[in-house]
Amino acid sequence: MAAAARAALSDLAAAPTAQKAAAITAAAAAIRARAGDLLAANAADVTDARTAGISAALIDRLALDAGRVQAIAAGLDTVAALPDPVGESIRTWTQPNGLAFERVRVPLGVIGIIYESRPGVTADAAALCLMAGNACLLRGGSEAGRSNAVLLQCVAAGLASAGLPAAAVQLVPAGDRALVGAMLAAQGLIDVIIPRGGKGLVARVAAEARVPVLAHLDGINHVYVDASADRATAVAITVNSKLRRTAVCGAMETLLIDRAAPAGLQHAVIAALVDGGCEVRGDPDVLGLDARIGPAGDQDWNTEYLDAIASAALVDGVEGAIAHIARHGSSHTDAIVAEDPGVAERFLAAVDSAIVLWNASTQFADGGEFGFGAEIGIATGRLHARGPVGLEGLTTYKTLVRGTGQVRA
Amino acid sequence: MAAAARAALSDLAAAPTAQKAAAITAAAAAIRARAGDLLAANAADVTDARTAGISAALIDRLALDAGRVQAIAAGLDTVAALPDPVGESIRTWTQPNGLAFERVRVPLGVIGIIYESRPGVTADAAALCLMAGNACLLRGGSEAGRSNAVLLQCVAAGLASAGLPAAAVQLVPAGDRALVGAMLAAQGLIDVIIPRGGKGLVARVAAEARVPVLAHLDGINHVYVDASADRATAVAITVNSKLRRTAVCGAMETLLIDRAAPAGLQHAVIAALVDGGCEVRGDPDVLGLDARIGPAGDQDWNTEYLDAIASAALVDGVEGAIAHIARHGSSHTDAIVAEDPGVAERFLAAVDSAIVLWNASTQFADGGEFGFGAEIGIATGRLHARGPVGLEGLTTYKTLVRGTGQVRA
Repeated sequence: MAAAARAALSDLAAAPTAQKAAAITAAAAAIRARAGDLLAANAADVTDARTAGISAALIDRLALDAGRVQAIAAGLDTVAALPDPVGESIRTWTQPNGLAFERVRVPLGVIGIIYESRPGVTADAAALCLMAGNACLLRGGSEAGRSNAVLLQCVAAGLASAGLPAAAVQLVPAGDRALVGAMLAAQGLIDVIIPRGGKGLVARVAAEARVPVLAHLDGINHVYVDASADRATAVAITVNSKLRRTAVCGAMETLLIDRAAPAGLQHAVIAALVDGGCEVRGDPDVLGLDARIGPAGDQDWNTEYLDAIASAALVDGVEGAIAHIARHGSSHTDAIVAEDPGVAERFLAAVDSAIVLWNASTQFADGGEFGFGAEIGIATGRLHARGPVGLEGLTTYKTLVRGTGQVRA
Repeated sequence: MAAAARAALSDLAAAPTAQKAAAITAAAAAIRARAGDLLAANAADVTDARTAGISAALIDRLALDAGRVQAIAAGLDTVAALPDPVGESIRTWTQPNGLAFERVRVPLGVIGIIYESRPGVTADAAALCLMAGNACLLRGGSEAGRSNAVLLQCVAAGLASAGLPAAAVQLVPAGDRALVGAMLAAQGLIDVIIPRGGKGLVARVAAEARVPVLAHLDGINHVYVDASADRATAVAITVNSKLRRTAVCGAMETLLIDRAAPAGLQHAVIAALVDGGCEVRGDPDVLGLDARIGPAGDQDWNTEYLDAIASAALVDGVEGAIAHIARHGSSHTDAIVAEDPGVAERFLAAVDSAIVLWNASTQFADGGEFGFGAEIGIATGRLHARGPVGLEGLTTYKTLVRGTGQVRA
């Protein structure tokens, strides 16, 4: 399958934007036209999953309804309308000998996507990979087997209608777990693996992969409230960062408060969290701020709750916050609330996370909110793409050198 | 050692350009001041290597003389004068909600360099890593053990004089081969491994590494001479691409000639190669062009000779050249010689190599020739840096988001 995908790469790299967009739009149309088939297949998947005793949370991710099917199709139309990164001239320069250099974006190659039971990923990942000129091998969870098969048929119909090779998007059979291992070991055949799912999946991929991986494992994100913070801003950002959605990777997990902050500010942010329904686990200094707080254990500072729970600590100013984040953070997303620009810029410079915010919610850690139109995930590794990965992150570049007969001395 | 290197990262990331440059300049001065010690250590290394029966080619790479020592020091001064990539603002944009985004370059982290017997790499790699704000673990060949120890002392003196942590540049003991395996497995401790050396070394690193690798394995580079090529240009570029230096990774290994090219052009490029001292191994079509050509075997098209040998074939125009390169190339460097711009642009677009040249020698595949000032190597992988890797390739980025209290809806 990977060899067939590689064989499709030159056609995909050369495909004009309109052709790729047409394939994706046609796939969206096929999904709408076959909504009944898709819902029937999905209902069978859900029935089997229930019989197998799959958790309610997983079944919620698996289950489609008419609205979700329309959302999947609309997502494809959104991707089809994004600017095509392929062929973009990133930089041009000329050397004194007259050689003209141009760095241009080209597709990344063959992308392996390993995901769980969410059928929407099948369509979404296929469209993103395709729009950036890549071939992809999709390996979804076996619970979604029937749903994914119908979705792949819709994508295949889109590819065929636009004259693009069927091998551009392939579904790896979900039954055989060894195939995941084969994907992870496929050096030279698969260029990058992108896992989409829970921590168990990502950890397995990161531990076993011989192919490069774009992913994030943890989102242990901090909000630091500086003594200079505006109280209303601090409350709003803290509550939004934690409680807007607790299960997203950009959610705040630890609140750090400046020891020198006014008592009213310290009380206000803690009270707002608790009032919002958040369990707060505090260090000894924080415990006195609100009677409703419980004590934090050592592990709380390294825990991604993904729930309405937060740890909280007092720190010694921005330097204390920077040190705490360096020790416990996961290089994902961290924010400062401060009115003092010098303090804020110190935080922005010293916190080495993929995303560092000043006076904004950590929940903006999202490709859509970055203006990328869509994202295939968030990466916290240090090579290639860092932060939300959109179409640009699914490309690489080559350097063109145009001369007039230059030879090297 | 990797943990100590990581602990040094925040100081290195915050170090101003002048401080890093001062450390490198002081290291260069120390190398000049201790040239006698270095030459004595190197002489002892060479004596041991001769006793051990090491090859003459390896001893040539190992041996220093006064001129080479001065060149090592001068190389450091060159790196110290390069523009500092750290903190560079790569892109800024604003979203409709007022959030101001800024992507800035930050150091990559801890870089492992695994190399062979060339002592100059110790100083050169240390300086490049340091200038981009990284810590590095240097693992050179055991043959150069004494030379590397003196060089490391000089670098350490430079770091100390500039007030930078000693852990920024560390020499991994060369005696224990298991330490290379430990470096290759050090996920989360070492951010990237850069092998510098022959194919055996690079292949081992690529096969075993769990840490991301920046490298190239083969440089099976092609020059395609189109029917539209100017004869003198074609001759000059072909000869320079192959014979200027045959052992560099940017050297041409296969010459492709347009079947439709004038006989005089076909003869001229082949004759020039042979006249220049190159053994040419041709396909049946090429054999008739020059009596001095021998036949190519199947493996010749996939062979990086790194010697005064080239394979040669006739192909059916630019499409034939593109197909041959797709099948046999190594995505390193390929060139077209042509006067027809349409043909040339087709080649530039369709050949998916890190470097693709038009009317210029493949021997320009070099960070210095690209204007990067220096390079730590050439990468042919598809993630992160592709082509010559200079200081910029030794950085990653983070995204700063400056708001005024925005929360996500």
